Amino acid sequence: MRYMPDKPQPRIVIVGAGFGGLAAAQALADAPAEVVVVDRHNYHLFQPLLYQVATAGLSPADIAAPIRSVLAPQANTSVILARVAGVDAARNELVTTDGRRIEYDYLVLATGARHAYFGRDEWEQHAPGIKKIDDAIHLRRKILLAFERAENEPDPDERRALLTFAIVGGGPTGVEMAGAIAELARKALARDFRNIDPRETRVILIEAGPRLLPAFDPDLSEVARRSLEALGVEVRLGARVMDCSERGVSFGPGDAIESRCIVWGAGVRASQAAKWIGAETDNVGRAKVGPDLTVPGHPNVFVIGDTAHALDMDGKPLPGVAPVAKQQGRYVAQAIKARLRGASVPRFMYRNWGSLATIGRRSAVVQFGATPDRRRKLSGYLAWWLWGIAHIAFLIGFRNRVSVVTNWVWSYLTFARGTRLITGPDPDQPVEPARVGIVPGSVAPAERERAAAA
Amino acid sequence: MRYMPDKPQPRIVIVGAGFGGLAAAQALADAPAEVVVVDRHNYHLFQPLLYQVATAGLSPADIAAPIRSVLAPQANTSVILARVAGVDAARNELVTTDGRRIEYDYLVLATGARHAYFGRDEWEQHAPGIKKIDDAIHLRRKILLAFERAENEPDPDERRALLTFAIVGGGPTGVEMAGAIAELARKALARDFRNIDPRETRVILIEAGPRLLPAFDPDLSEVARRSLEALGVEVRLGARVMDCSERGVSFGPGDAIESRCIVWGAGVRASQAAKWIGAETDNVGRAKVGPDLTVPGHPNVFVIGDTAHALDMDGKPLPGVAPVAKQQGRYVAQAIKARLRGASVPRFMYRNWGSLATIGRRSAVVQFGATPDRRRKLSGYLAWWLWGIAHIAFLIGFRNRVSVVTNWVWSYLTFARGTRLITGPDPDQPVEPARVGIVPGSVAPAERERAAAA
Repeated sequence: MRYMPDKPQPRIVIVGAGFGGLAAAQALADAPAEVVVVDRHNYHLFQPLLYQVATAGLSPADIAAPIRSVLAPQANTSVILARVAGVDAARNELVTTDGRRIEYDYLVLATGARHAYFGRDEWEQHAPGIKKIDDAIHLRRKILLAFERAENEPDPDERRALLTFAIVGGGPTGVEMAGAIAELARKALARDFRNIDPRETRVILIEAGPRLLPAFDPDLSEVARRSLEALGVEVRLGARVMDCSERGVSFGPGDAIESRCIVWGAGVRASQAAKWIGAETDNVGRAKVGPDLTVPGHPNVFVIGDTAHALDMDGKPLPGVAPVAKQQGRYVAQAIKARLRGASVPRFMYRNWGSLATIGRRSAVVQFGATPDRRRKLSGYLAWWLWGIAHIAFLIGFRNRVSVVTNWVWSYLTFARGTRLITGPDPDQPVEPARVGIVPGSVAPAERERAAAA
Repeated sequence: MRYMPDKPQPRIVIVGAGFGGLAAAQALADAPAEVVVVDRHNYHLFQPLLYQVATAGLSPADIAAPIRSVLAPQANTSVILARVAGVDAARNELVTTDGRRIEYDYLVLATGARHAYFGRDEWEQHAPGIKKIDDAIHLRRKILLAFERAENEPDPDERRALLTFAIVGGGPTGVEMAGAIAELARKALARDFRNIDPRETRVILIEAGPRLLPAFDPDLSEVARRSLEALGVEVRLGARVMDCSERGVSFGPGDAIESRCIVWGAGVRASQAAKWIGAETDNVGRAKVGPDLTVPGHPNVFVIGDTAHALDMDGKPLPGVAPVAKQQGRYVAQAIKARLRGASVPRFMYRNWGSLATIGRRSAVVQFGATPDRRRKLSGYLAWWLWGIAHIAFLIGFRNRVSVVTNWVWSYLTFARGTRLITGPDPDQPVEPARVGIVPGSVAPAERERAAAA
């Protein structure tokens, strides 16, 4: 199975081993070319389950697979751990931050997106998003520490603010985070504290538009809203965030939510890939690409996934979701292989199989088919099973599947969360000082009595 | 089962939820007292398997359990996440770094130990140890990055230094780390790289004394040495480290090992607990305690585990191992309960059931019994099974057991490692710049050919 060339081979460089880049690399396993995958992380991340790492349901390693291991069987493929500084398109070279230059014959940019704050970058410190493993660990720490601080907090107002979680953005990330935090508080943590009752936690999901899950059918949006409310989540629709600070979320004068933990799921911004290649961008920084996913003026440079602005057959931009990225990755591999043998392929067409989102234990919404007229919809228990099976099926690596299923079955049976670790960047200062400073005397007598009576 | 007091109860404060502190807290579940457990982490850590986190075999959450969950069923017990600043013994108060004062009637200090460098603290940055989860994640990152850097390194000398791992200390930690790194390189990573062959990795275990595992019988030390050498580990006995730097380990003029990854398993130093209480200490900072584990002059303050210098019946100090800490924790609980009802207990006696250490796949050494005359010994495959069963049995929490067994079975069958994630404190700079600066041109032609031919 090992490819032995008798002449120098063309080289295909793929930047980013997310859904798009990895799909492209895997579809190039049989190409008569050298394939080089460059990523700044050593693992492929299964982003759709990242919210479960942030809410202490799964370990990071459960949803990540080393890129080298995944691609090891492909003899024509090598992996480089590096950050990209830019592209020298005139010389067909990729430049890394440590000064290396990697020549390419074809370049595939699949560098994804980060969360974005509509130009209010100062919100990020107060309202972190979840796109990477480090984001999820940071958020897990922040969520778990909120309960720990509340337990130690003598001021009832501050305690309420610590037990209020504001989630901004009613898309799948926001809906899943809201459901998961509500379940964490009401089930997994319910009996673990003495001075607070985690079941008094407020989880508020904030959406600027008129309904949750705008990519879904309106009646599924309504199902999602009702399911979340049954979990105890407060849903605020049509609420536009004016400010995020260490005090909470503000919607305007006199309308604010006091919260010490805001989660951002409202906007994304594409990576810098468009700048590297000098491509025209849309308003979220995605590179505008042609029907064959190449950058105009650079026929050997492809941009795919969340960092590409590609149009569907109706002229509407394709959404930044995993299935689009994977199909684009496979398309680009076919297109390059065709060109290597002097042929060509028709334009890229996205085949929309459907969408899934889960709301919590035993509840999810699923719709199949792209167009409203022949759409099938499903919600509730059966949809939840389908969601689980689909996510397990798409996870890479047998070990990850076993581990995720084990964790899910255990959580389902016990309501507990297995990965409730507060780990952090500074091993010697894991507990931040309490906001209120010195509390005179020892634990307040009222709290001692509550603790004894609890 | 909930205890309802009709008069104010005495309060027992336990600092540290390691093996000793947790055993004490659990044995106090039925005490007519309020129990408060203070720890700076929110989890109990199963330290004996920490080396498997450092070598990408297990996830942190597999070997940690939230202290609150473990103690939630005990109605008389509460948990406080805080760092201790000191003890105000005159007022019977524990003081935390955020300024709280927690009154106690009885105080149990079980704050463990850190690795130590015989007064050469500047070695720590080059030769990290493994005592905490953050240590293990840091070391995992360092080990995995060494292979990634070697893959990109054009200079053969530097490549050799990157693929040389020096482990200082021939106790259980050093032996287990050496075996695990050798297996990682020779099995899990063997096929994943294109420019290097991880099987060329050198793993050197350095011990100043005349044999490995000095706590074991000499013939088991010899078994351990031979087993490690069979795995490809070089064992250097009687080698005293003079310096650790970014270049490697030095033993004296002209005798040095070039290594970019040194692992420290040679010495420990007790926590600051003895200073808090003003106790006399031994040369590693442990508080000297009486036969009932109290600090002389402080009859209501107990020190246990790695931070206590307690003597056995022969007047020799007890070793800093988990069974000692657990037995001391249970003893202290019994002693306090006896005192609460006006009784007393005899002095602490350590019951030594035996020692275990694993060397790698299918190999371990086990000895039962304290005294050489009636000691039973075991090594090899059966000892390895015993080691595995004992560690699973002592792990806290059903989820952790299932997860660890799943990971072990998978690793055993496939030789792969599941948690090979390079995660780090700075999410935006996960790859440190290469040492050599700019490498002109693209990937060297010789390496391209090797990659194509591999």
